[in-house]
Amino acid sequence: ADRDAGRRTAVVCQACHGLDGLSKNPEAPNLAGQVESYLVKALRDYRSEARRNESMNIVAKDLSDADIENVAAYYASIPIEVVPP
Amino acid sequence: ADRDAGRRTAVVCQACHGLDGLSKNPEAPNLAGQVESYLVKALRDYRSEARRNESMNIVAKDLSDADIENVAAYYASIPIEVVPP
Repeated sequence: ADRDAGRRTAVVCQACHGLDGLSKNPEAPNLAGQVESYLVKALRDYRSEARRNESMNIVAKDLSDADIENVAAYYASIPIEVVPP
Repeated sequence: ADRDAGRRTAVVCQACHGLDGLSKNPEAPNLAGQVESYLVKALRDYRSEARRNESMNIVAKDLSDADIENVAAYYASIPIEVVPP
């Protein structure tokens, strides 16, 4: 996957998810460092409407398979560190 | 919400999501530091089967509203740091 292309695609995601992958809206999850295959599956399910969310079904409708793989790779690649409680 | 109770509830989640909220399986997302309201919605949707996932529909079936709020608060409270790319 092409992370740089993913970063360009992420322009449509950033309003809710941020380019840094930190949520900008209480309904939107953080995406930074998320599991790549999980992001690909979520986007495919939003595109096919197997998974329902008004905004995401609209946003995902126009994404190609490559867009999905690239944007998933981009967000998954944002390093996060967890401080275990 | 009661995070300690949430940590006890998380015993059923840890196999896939870890107690530290870092995914232990490629189908399972990281939960550490995730948006609390997003986690509550996801669990409710899995419980009502508005959102389909074999394992999660089973796990969520027995969760009470309090369990859901507590475990969401627990995972949301795990601090993460993002190193913006």
